[in-house]
Amino acid sequence: MTNAPNNRPEETLDPQDWDAMRALGHRMMDDMLDYLQNVRERPVWQPVPEEAKANLSRPLPDDPQSAESVYADFKRDVMPYPMGNIHPRFWGWVIGTGTPLGVMADMLSAMMNVNVGGGAHAAPHVEAQVIEWCKQMMGFPAGASGVLVNGASMANFVALNVARNAHSGFNVRQDGLQGHTPRLRVYASIQAHTCIQRAVELLGLGRSNLCSVPVNADYQMDITALEQMIAADRAAGHQPLAIVGTAGTVNTGAFDDLQTLADIAERENLWFHVDGAFGALAAITPDSRHYAAGMERANSLAFDLHKWMYVPYDVACVLVRDRDQHRQAFSVSPDYLSHTERGVSGIDLWFTDYTVELSRSFRALKVWMSIKEHGIEKYGRLIQQNIDQTRYLAGLVDAEPKLERLAPAPLNILCFRYVVPGMDDAALNAFNEELLIRLQESGVAAPSNTRLNGRYAIRVANTNHRSRREDFDLLVQTVVQLGDALAAEQR
Amino acid sequence: MTNAPNNRPEETLDPQDWDAMRALGHRMMDDMLDYLQNVRERPVWQPVPEEAKANLSRPLPDDPQSAESVYADFKRDVMPYPMGNIHPRFWGWVIGTGTPLGVMADMLSAMMNVNVGGGAHAAPHVEAQVIEWCKQMMGFPAGASGVLVNGASMANFVALNVARNAHSGFNVRQDGLQGHTPRLRVYASIQAHTCIQRAVELLGLGRSNLCSVPVNADYQMDITALEQMIAADRAAGHQPLAIVGTAGTVNTGAFDDLQTLADIAERENLWFHVDGAFGALAAITPDSRHYAAGMERANSLAFDLHKWMYVPYDVACVLVRDRDQHRQAFSVSPDYLSHTERGVSGIDLWFTDYTVELSRSFRALKVWMSIKEHGIEKYGRLIQQNIDQTRYLAGLVDAEPKLERLAPAPLNILCFRYVVPGMDDAALNAFNEELLIRLQESGVAAPSNTRLNGRYAIRVANTNHRSRREDFDLLVQTVVQLGDALAAEQR
Repeated sequence: MTNAPNNRPEETLDPQDWDAMRALGHRMMDDMLDYLQNVRERPVWQPVPEEAKANLSRPLPDDPQSAESVYADFKRDVMPYPMGNIHPRFWGWVIGTGTPLGVMADMLSAMMNVNVGGGAHAAPHVEAQVIEWCKQMMGFPAGASGVLVNGASMANFVALNVARNAHSGFNVRQDGLQGHTPRLRVYASIQAHTCIQRAVELLGLGRSNLCSVPVNADYQMDITALEQMIAADRAAGHQPLAIVGTAGTVNTGAFDDLQTLADIAERENLWFHVDGAFGALAAITPDSRHYAAGMERANSLAFDLHKWMYVPYDVACVLVRDRDQHRQAFSVSPDYLSHTERGVSGIDLWFTDYTVELSRSFRALKVWMSIKEHGIEKYGRLIQQNIDQTRYLAGLVDAEPKLERLAPAPLNILCFRYVVPGMDDAALNAFNEELLIRLQESGVAAPSNTRLNGRYAIRVANTNHRSRREDFDLLVQTVVQLGDALAAEQR
Repeated sequence: MTNAPNNRPEETLDPQDWDAMRALGHRMMDDMLDYLQNVRERPVWQPVPEEAKANLSRPLPDDPQSAESVYADFKRDVMPYPMGNIHPRFWGWVIGTGTPLGVMADMLSAMMNVNVGGGAHAAPHVEAQVIEWCKQMMGFPAGASGVLVNGASMANFVALNVARNAHSGFNVRQDGLQGHTPRLRVYASIQAHTCIQRAVELLGLGRSNLCSVPVNADYQMDITALEQMIAADRAAGHQPLAIVGTAGTVNTGAFDDLQTLADIAERENLWFHVDGAFGALAAITPDSRHYAAGMERANSLAFDLHKWMYVPYDVACVLVRDRDQHRQAFSVSPDYLSHTERGVSGIDLWFTDYTVELSRSFRALKVWMSIKEHGIEKYGRLIQQNIDQTRYLAGLVDAEPKLERLAPAPLNILCFRYVVPGMDDAALNAFNEELLIRLQESGVAAPSNTRLNGRYAIRVANTNHRSRREDFDLLVQTVVQLGDALAAEQR
């Protein structure tokens, strides 16, 4: 086992020529800032050419290539073909925009390359600081705990794991679910995000135990139906576990009535979780915080920072009201992770006790630097601006007879379609799908799509700090233009 | 719902002064390269001063602060206090080192700020390329699938979720575990990483159904014990589900006999998963690939790229032999994620169908750029170099009468202690704990610790491309020096 080492000379992955690497780094920095500064001049999106795809399908390289030529490959095959969400007229899905300092923060984070699982170094303090700020933003009490994860899917999963472990009345970690007879039931509206379904499936609860509550005309959870479902489940011998409220549904931006859900959860002794992936951020706006009322009563809350806090991918936050419950759902203490009073492992900030991962990147840094750079009040104004812009767009759509709004738009999401008189819903669906694709292909704007009551909708989700009202003017003009042209083709 | 917008002027988070932001960016680039180039001149680790901690405990800022002053705060309170793993003499836990181009790649990734959940843009092609390379590196067949995640904990969790869903013989996603009577049993050695326990708990299987198989003197899973446990479980009416082999245990770097485990899994019709967090990379070395033999027969394999591929945090890979099983364990298709033939959502590369997250950062870029920069053969030599250096260290320890090796060191991990003649194990444990802390506080080197059969071990895990043999000479000298001094104090 202790063979003499061979005689290969020792190598490293560090540059042989640091000056050349430095020159390359400065070129990248300039290119990066040009890329962001001039984004408005480029198309929102363009397809990846076949040649670039071919270049991105090469065999595993045995031999090295200079850093400069690797970067040249990146500039040729990758950089010109982004998703588009940094552009002022990208409003697809719900995707943030990023900022220059956020980008640089990711470089600094990779430079330090720390593991924020825990230990006595600065990064865990930065993450703890960010968590405290998140608690203040969301009105969570001082005793709450939290952790940064890589997205709201994971944040919701972490929260529901705490619910399952802390609120089911038996030792799930030790015994598993198989020996427990009454089915654990989770309630969420049919408009809840699929990551709730995924979390329920991953946790072994089974999606048949995710009770999909109908919604009212405003796409909010139907409270009467919820109460009836809970009562029926109790009568059937099931065990209601948790209510999941949504702060900002992905389809229409609807908020469930969180105060009432909190009341019901309290009365029924259920865990109250809120999925606030983007909508939770309404809580820091000057004019829209009332939507989030009741959210601060939740046992757990999940929300993204890479969406409506405009921080580069990837970072989200989960908050849990009871720190002990949070810790007890995850903590493990193997020999090789023992904590000490002094030295590298000497700190009582082990985030690994609160989430799935042991290796954790320094994603807290970009949040910390961003919030410091702008101050939280400006974030509140920007988020409000996106809401106001969406209302402005709603006004434009409502004023244009060729367009039809398909749902209320309380927040930052608007669903609409182009209407051809006399065309039925099935034909309109196909028509609007083609129209949306042409809009994306034009490079002018990139909304995404959804279906509401079977009707295909062009869906604008505005979490973009670069958008201006004139961008929404251009959107409506272009949709009408493309719609007219398409209708003429099909006539 | 469509109130007239208020009259606030429109704002953005983009810089008001792009030239100033550019100047700051270039300063950061220089500082970053200085930080990496001169890392050898600094202490491995130093504690965070109380003043910095106080500065990292401030209230949520309402008001903005210039980007320059945010960076000054970072340079004062954060940058000087890293964990230490980028330093040539950091060998704690198992943590990679990073490279300058890897750091820059993270900046470029944050610049593009794409969501690699899916869609028609370049990044999913880059990730697909990296997955193909990983399959080639690990000897997985062309039909296998894979996805990048943020660490081996998640990679193991994803793999075991596929095992649970694809191999349990019932519809776990739909029905959950509660209705299924025979207990699903997972087998792993007592030296397996705790993330296996965590995955089993998260999946709802219960850690009482994680069967801890004893190990032999080389810390490898005891095959006879495994076979007996499986037989006993079948006799008791349980349902054996999966064997988890370890390629490189965290305590000593031991490899389970993967060929034999593959044979047993085949014969018993069990899922065969390999946790190869760092050890899987032995497969690409010139002289140590035999350790990993049999790994390529696994149904699923988890390994990190931020450890022994030296890529900055965070990125790991999970491979699954059967693409359909992988996809069926995760895929969901809500209305707002419908895929099309053309436009932004027009591509058949939706990684969201293969993992937990819908929002996914462009972590593939740093892997793609790094492998291109160095070529895979150099990675193989570097990993072998770490193994050879560890054998060199083993020779130094074995030759030093004051030091005692505590376990075989087949790979890149060495466990040893300083021995004071006449001192019993309990006293030696306390002695070596203090010795390790003093070593870390000296700034000379940072191993971590573990316990082996109750004995406290100073544990060196070498995944460091900056280490040289002379660093291990200095380690041994310093440990002996500090040990002598401590022994003299206690005499």
